[in-house]
Amino acid sequence: MEIIIEPIREAWSKILKRPEIEKLELEEKVRSIFQLVGEEGDQGLLELTRKFDGVDLSGLQVADDMITQAGALLSEELKNAIQVAYRNISLFHEAQKSSEQRIETSKGTVCWQEFRALERVGIYIPGGEAPLFSTVLMLGIPAKIAGCKEIVVCTPPSANGSVDPAILYCAQLIGATSIYAVGGAQAIAAMTLGTESMVKVDKIFGPGNQFVTEAKRFSQYLGTAIDMLAGPSEVCVYADESCSPTFVAADLLSQAEHGEDSHVLAIVPSIELARKVKSEVNLQLQDLPRQEVAQKSLASGSIVVLSDQELAIELINQYAPEHLILATANSYEMSAKIINAGSIFLGNFTPESAGDYASGTNHTLPTGGQAKITGGVNLMSFGKMVTFQEISEIGLKELSSTIRTMAEAEGLHAHAYAVKIRESKIKQLI
Amino acid sequence: MEIIIEPIREAWSKILKRPEIEKLELEEKVRSIFQLVGEEGDQGLLELTRKFDGVDLSGLQVADDMITQAGALLSEELKNAIQVAYRNISLFHEAQKSSEQRIETSKGTVCWQEFRALERVGIYIPGGEAPLFSTVLMLGIPAKIAGCKEIVVCTPPSANGSVDPAILYCAQLIGATSIYAVGGAQAIAAMTLGTESMVKVDKIFGPGNQFVTEAKRFSQYLGTAIDMLAGPSEVCVYADESCSPTFVAADLLSQAEHGEDSHVLAIVPSIELARKVKSEVNLQLQDLPRQEVAQKSLASGSIVVLSDQELAIELINQYAPEHLILATANSYEMSAKIINAGSIFLGNFTPESAGDYASGTNHTLPTGGQAKITGGVNLMSFGKMVTFQEISEIGLKELSSTIRTMAEAEGLHAHAYAVKIRESKIKQLI
Repeated sequence: MEIIIEPIREAWSKILKRPEIEKLELEEKVRSIFQLVGEEGDQGLLELTRKFDGVDLSGLQVADDMITQAGALLSEELKNAIQVAYRNISLFHEAQKSSEQRIETSKGTVCWQEFRALERVGIYIPGGEAPLFSTVLMLGIPAKIAGCKEIVVCTPPSANGSVDPAILYCAQLIGATSIYAVGGAQAIAAMTLGTESMVKVDKIFGPGNQFVTEAKRFSQYLGTAIDMLAGPSEVCVYADESCSPTFVAADLLSQAEHGEDSHVLAIVPSIELARKVKSEVNLQLQDLPRQEVAQKSLASGSIVVLSDQELAIELINQYAPEHLILATANSYEMSAKIINAGSIFLGNFTPESAGDYASGTNHTLPTGGQAKITGGVNLMSFGKMVTFQEISEIGLKELSSTIRTMAEAEGLHAHAYAVKIRESKIKQLI
Repeated sequence: MEIIIEPIREAWSKILKRPEIEKLELEEKVRSIFQLVGEEGDQGLLELTRKFDGVDLSGLQVADDMITQAGALLSEELKNAIQVAYRNISLFHEAQKSSEQRIETSKGTVCWQEFRALERVGIYIPGGEAPLFSTVLMLGIPAKIAGCKEIVVCTPPSANGSVDPAILYCAQLIGATSIYAVGGAQAIAAMTLGTESMVKVDKIFGPGNQFVTEAKRFSQYLGTAIDMLAGPSEVCVYADESCSPTFVAADLLSQAEHGEDSHVLAIVPSIELARKVKSEVNLQLQDLPRQEVAQKSLASGSIVVLSDQELAIELINQYAPEHLILATANSYEMSAKIINAGSIFLGNFTPESAGDYASGTNHTLPTGGQAKITGGVNLMSFGKMVTFQEISEIGLKELSSTIRTMAEAEGLHAHAYAVKIRESKIKQLI
C-alpha cells in the first residue's frame, strides 16, 4: 500500500481508480449462452454444466432428501451461528416494512401506497473455493419477509455433482421453493427465460464472476429486473488518532483477502498514523492463509494522508465505497456528511465483517462507484409500491377544473371529458 | 372493442396481448447516436437536432430570460391549475419521507438506514403534438423534495427553436438547474455521457418514443440508472353493476386517445353491462377530437365478461395494468387482492385523469406488464438508502463467535481475525 500525502484534487481520480477488469469479449459469449438455453432448455443447461463445471448431471433440481439431510453435515457451532445471523438479519429487514400512510392531498381525495411482494425471485450463489452460504441468508431472508411466493436458488455443482450443505441448509431456512445445481451465465439465462424444469423469475439477485455479471446485465436488457451489477468488493477506512491501527489494518486485510481485484483505501489525518497502519498491515499479512490474494489486492490500494477532514469527506463521496468504516471520535457527525456509500460502520468496534455476517444489515451492496446511484439490497428490493387513490364526489368537484384545464392544455380532451361527465352527475347529487 | 364472454384461461394471453410495436432496428441506430454524441459532444447534438428536429440552434441551453418570461405566456387559469397540482403532488411525495428507525438487532448492535438523494438527475420530456408539462411536475417535484442538487431537463425544440412555455414554467417551479432544447435518443446519450455544456447525470427519468426508450435501455446497459422503460400507456377498468357505464366508457376513451398503440381492457360481470359500455364508448367516440387515434387503439382492446370476480382478479394480475380502475361496490376489498398494477383508482368518482394530473400520485408508471416487477416513480426513485451500524464493545463480544464461525466456514480468515483482535482488546476493557 502506497502512502500518498496530501494529494491535490487532480490526483484523486487516479487514487480512487479500482483495478481494471480484463475484458473477455463477454457480451458475445453470454449472448450465445442465452441462445442455447433459450433453444434447448434443460438439455442446454446440462450440456453447459458438463462443459463449464465438468460434471455430468442427470437432473438440475437438488433432491429433497439432499436438502433435508444437509443440516446433519454441519457442526452445531456453525448451525448456531447461522441461527444468530438469521435472527439479526430478520430483525433489521422486518423493521423495514412500511406502514400505510393515507394522505388527504385535497378535500375528498385520499392517496396512499401499498407494498406488494414480487411473485418469483431468483437467487444466484456462486460456487468456487468458498461456499457463500451467508449470501443465501442476506437475499433469502428479505425475500421471505416480503412474502415472495417462489424463491429459486441456483448454485453451481461441485466436481462430484453435489451442492455445499451449508448453502442447502440456509436455503431451507429461508424457505427456498426450489434449488438448482446450475451456475454461471447459464443459471442467469435459465432464470431469465425459463426452461422445462425452471421457472422464469421476475427479478434476479446475487453476486458472481464477470460472466454472471454480464449475464445479469443482459437479463436486465431483456426486461428482467436485477438487484445490481456486482463488481469486486471494496472498503474505505477513515481513521483518526482515536483509532487502533491494529484494527484498521485488520479491516483492510479482511477486504483484501476477498480477491486480487478487491480495492482497499485508508484515509488518515497524519503521516505518523499512515505509517503505523501500513506496518500493521504488513505484520498481519504474514499470518494470513490467503496472503497471496491479499498482497495483490493491497498493491492497488493506498493510504491517503489528508489532514483536512472536510477534504477527506469529499474524497470519500467521490469514491462512493461499498463499505465505509469511520474509525473516528466524531463518526456520527462525519457520517451525516457522507452522501455516497453502501454501508457505513461507525467507531472502533464495528468491523466490516460484522455487517458481512451478523449485525443484521445486508451485505449485498453497490460496488465500483454504483453507491452513487443505488443503495444495497433491502426489503424494498423484493417488492414494489402500488399507488392508490380514492376520490369522493366532493373531492372530484374540488379538483375537476384543475384536471380539465391541464388536460385541455395538453390536448387530451377525453381526459377532460372523463371529469366533465362526472361533474354533471355530481351537480345532480349535491 | 370486441366483447369476449367468459374466456377460458388458455385464451387469456391473447386477450391481454398489448399491440405489437414495430421493431425499427433501434439498437444499432441508438448505438450510433451514442457514438456521435460521445465523440463530438455539443456539436454532435446540434447536428442531430438539425437532422431530427429540423432546426438549427446556436446553443443547447434554454436562456434564462426565456424561462423567466414563460409564465407570462400562460393563462391565469392554467397557472392556477398547475399550482393546485403542484401542491397535491408535493403533499403526497413529501409524506413518503421515511423516518429513521434504529434497530438494536442484538445487545449493543444498532442498525439503521438513512436516505440520501441522488446528486444529479435528468428529466426527459417528449415534444411532439402536445407539451407534456404535467410530467415535469411528476418527475421534478419528488426530485426537489428528495434534495437532488442538479435537476437537468431536456426537451426537443419546436420547428422555430423554442421550447413550450408551460414546460419552462413547470421546470422553473420544480427548481430545474438547467434546461436544454435537445430531444430524442441524443438527449439521453448526452445525459448519459456528458458533453462540454451538459453534465453527466446519475439517473435518467421520463417517457418518450421508441428511440428514447431504446436509448434509456442502452444508457442503463452502460451503467446509468433509469426510472423504467416506458411503453404505450394502458388502462384496465373492472366495473360491476354499481358502475356508471358512461363513466367507464369515458375512462376507456381517455386512455385510448393517448396513442394508436394504447391498450384498453374492460372487465365486467355480465353481458348486459358489456353491451352498455360498448355502446357508450361508440357514442362518446363521435365527439372526440382525437377520434381517429382512439378508434385504432380501441380496435386492439376488449370488454371481457367474467361473472366470477376471483377469476377477474386473476386476469388483472396476469395483465399487470399500468392503471387499474375498480368501479365496483367492493373496490377496497377487491384492491387488497391486486398484486400487479401501477396505480389503482377506487370507486366511481376516481377517474384515471385525476391521477394523471392532480390527485397527487405519480403518473410515471410501469407499462407493458412491468407492473409485475416495479412500482411507479416515487420519492425513493430519487435517492437511495444507506445502511449504518454501530457496535459497542459489549455488542461485539455478543456477536464475535457468530462472525468468526461463519467467516471461517466461508474460508475468510482475515474476516475472522478482524473480530478476534478486537475481542482481545475487549477482554482487557471489561
